[in-house]
Amino acid sequence: MAKRLVVIGGTAAGLSAASKAKRNMPELEIEVYEKSGYVSYGACGLPYFVGNLIHEPEDLVSLTADQLRTKRGIPTYIHHEVTAIDRVAKIVTVSNLDTGDRFERPYDALVIATGAVPVLPPIPGIHAEGVHCLRTVESGIALKARVQCGAKKAVVIGGGFIGLEVAEELALSGVQVTLLEGEKRLLTFLNEEYAAEVERTLSAGGVSVHTGCPAKEIILQSGRAAGVLGADGCVYDADLVLVAVGVRPCADLARAAGLALGYKGGIVVDEHLQTSDPSIWACGDCVQMRNLITGEPCYVPLGTTANKQGRIAGGNLTGEDGCFRGVLASQVTKVFDLYIASTGLSMEQARSAGFDPACTAITKGDRASYYPGGGDNHLYLVFDRHTGRLLGAQGIGTASVAGRINVLVAAITSGMTVSQLNELDLVYAPPVAPVYDPILIAASQALKKVDKK
Amino acid sequence: MAKRLVVIGGTAAGLSAASKAKRNMPELEIEVYEKSGYVSYGACGLPYFVGNLIHEPEDLVSLTADQLRTKRGIPTYIHHEVTAIDRVAKIVTVSNLDTGDRFERPYDALVIATGAVPVLPPIPGIHAEGVHCLRTVESGIALKARVQCGAKKAVVIGGGFIGLEVAEELALSGVQVTLLEGEKRLLTFLNEEYAAEVERTLSAGGVSVHTGCPAKEIILQSGRAAGVLGADGCVYDADLVLVAVGVRPCADLARAAGLALGYKGGIVVDEHLQTSDPSIWACGDCVQMRNLITGEPCYVPLGTTANKQGRIAGGNLTGEDGCFRGVLASQVTKVFDLYIASTGLSMEQARSAGFDPACTAITKGDRASYYPGGGDNHLYLVFDRHTGRLLGAQGIGTASVAGRINVLVAAITSGMTVSQLNELDLVYAPPVAPVYDPILIAASQALKKVDKK
Repeated sequence: MAKRLVVIGGTAAGLSAASKAKRNMPELEIEVYEKSGYVSYGACGLPYFVGNLIHEPEDLVSLTADQLRTKRGIPTYIHHEVTAIDRVAKIVTVSNLDTGDRFERPYDALVIATGAVPVLPPIPGIHAEGVHCLRTVESGIALKARVQCGAKKAVVIGGGFIGLEVAEELALSGVQVTLLEGEKRLLTFLNEEYAAEVERTLSAGGVSVHTGCPAKEIILQSGRAAGVLGADGCVYDADLVLVAVGVRPCADLARAAGLALGYKGGIVVDEHLQTSDPSIWACGDCVQMRNLITGEPCYVPLGTTANKQGRIAGGNLTGEDGCFRGVLASQVTKVFDLYIASTGLSMEQARSAGFDPACTAITKGDRASYYPGGGDNHLYLVFDRHTGRLLGAQGIGTASVAGRINVLVAAITSGMTVSQLNELDLVYAPPVAPVYDPILIAASQALKKVDKK
Repeated sequence: MAKRLVVIGGTAAGLSAASKAKRNMPELEIEVYEKSGYVSYGACGLPYFVGNLIHEPEDLVSLTADQLRTKRGIPTYIHHEVTAIDRVAKIVTVSNLDTGDRFERPYDALVIATGAVPVLPPIPGIHAEGVHCLRTVESGIALKARVQCGAKKAVVIGGGFIGLEVAEELALSGVQVTLLEGEKRLLTFLNEEYAAEVERTLSAGGVSVHTGCPAKEIILQSGRAAGVLGADGCVYDADLVLVAVGVRPCADLARAAGLALGYKGGIVVDEHLQTSDPSIWACGDCVQMRNLITGEPCYVPLGTTANKQGRIAGGNLTGEDGCFRGVLASQVTKVFDLYIASTGLSMEQARSAGFDPACTAITKGDRASYYPGGGDNHLYLVFDRHTGRLLGAQGIGTASVAGRINVLVAAITSGMTVSQLNELDLVYAPPVAPVYDPILIAASQALKKVDKK
């Protein structure tokens, strides 16, 4: 059994692993090394910190490195980068970024939770001053400083969740925002109609959206970003540029140590989150995942998965036998007053996975029609045309759409057909739902497209 | 195949059956007879009509009898009571309540959807003027008239959903409300702690709640209700009294026709909603139901079930083979700003059904802790101590609790264990949920109480 655990990375996955291991085995000696200046922070809250809905960076932090040491007995070091793993000697090399000191630490068990890094499109000017990403607390502080120092115009490159959330927050902060998306629509995992509604919502909120328009160049003035040249030939002026075209696994350390890497360069782990080296576990945004429906490798870096995987890895390295079976890519956000949620496969993904999928889209109020207030839920189901098995779901509308997508998460996970979905005894009361819940309306419509035997 | 369909009852179940049958078989001759003056109305909205959140009785109505005839081709008669069924001759006797005329109509297929009637406790004065029930639109109009004519004090007898909803609406209308509940707690299907929180919420809203205090007598003045004597010996003054101690199946007609009756006097139907007479289907609040988990007879009169059963009955009598498998007793309401939802078995019910149940209760914010706004979700799970199978769930808190109980509806229906629940890939974003959704927190706590093998 392990006596010394080293954890590389001090956010969701790494600290979940460390905390779980410590709970299971209080005598375990643990050290956590975090490259940045913050540990245990809610990275998903960064857009709202930029928009000043959350005031201080410390508000995002659950436990500081000091508190982890004193309250949890987990010595945690910020500004410490692990630069090498010697798997034979079971030693990591650590660099103190404040002092420049280097030292070595032995381990019996190692957890790699190095997370992800933003993808930077290879265009001129991408490394210039005034070009931001949003990933660490420091990157949030830098972006917020720019906003609070009076930035008037921003270009957001990338129409994924982070791009949309920041675009919203910047617009609400009074910044004039242009959003450039290279694909033909925002949020490409959504169906076209819903993506168009998201675009309308952003436009109504004052964000100028250009789809099918990848950024070609960062235009510089006196060496710093002053605009972005789009593929449409237009230059969009900017005091600040946010690049949010996605992230990739931060797996250089694992690669250098000779660990197997897989899909999109994520560290290959088994269901127990063990790497190709049985003394090394990996979890969170740095690992390859599996889609729960198709069993195929995928990469869906999310805080929920990172926390769950960390807990399982921490349990397993102390002798448990936990499994992480895979992801559905369930996600949610809001843009202004429009909530957007999704789980499972899109039509394209379902086809690629060998299904013969059908889909249906419905719109239904989220309360009894006669009850005041409320608004619409739009639900879109993807299902197998022959078996009726539910494969995916997307929803936009009022806040209640999140709960409805979660019902469909449970349905997909348990292998339900749309016929079984149609029979669910869901709750009803006029202030909360219509008598036929939007889920049941969607299921009954879907049922019509399933082959009759 | 049937050529003539008679439907007895023109609300949820009856009209769902008629509409479905007509869609399937346009040539079918259908007549719907409704005793009251309204068809196709949302009975669950009546408390909010009383509170004037919904202004006109017509706002509760989807389609009038005229519209059913002209738009749907379904001749529908209000103020017409079916008084007898001759199963041998396949003839019903109908009484026109406006004219007193009686006539006979033949049928090939008959749907009984006579609903439920309020239970009246056998106490002195219960039939006096000023004592109200809330079931039909007419009963809602009468109650609202009393409120709008300046009723100052009300006593509500019964602390179920209807009692609570009306108490809230009366209090919000400026009426001083006393609520008497015979059992030791409100909403007896809830655990004690949650029931107590509901009671606190009502009290904070100005409703004076007395549990363990059944009504003993309606106190009359000049022949009309002026107060209620409680089992505590106190007389609670009242300009109006609402009796809401539950309902029972309205099955007198079925009984007189010799159809089999079951639990609580509900008409016995099979999964196809066929009665003991193969030409007669029954659906909605007048039938005996089955609990989906235990398979045991039960009686849970709800609009959702009535609509679903009606649709299945209407389909089956035109040659389909639909099944209604049972109910989980899923329900939801709100009292002031507290949402209350429940599904499946309580601890008591689980024990009675032969399980060895355990339970767990958790409280968790419904958003990331650092995201402003939001409030708590309190979730309570009932599960089998040995297998971990989820058996029931209760929730109180913010509006999002309804969606979470619906996730647990799907989980219970598919036979999930709390371990499987703990693995669900639920959506997360700071404005919508914490990274560990309350459902996952509850599941992980429950898991600790499941026997390790």
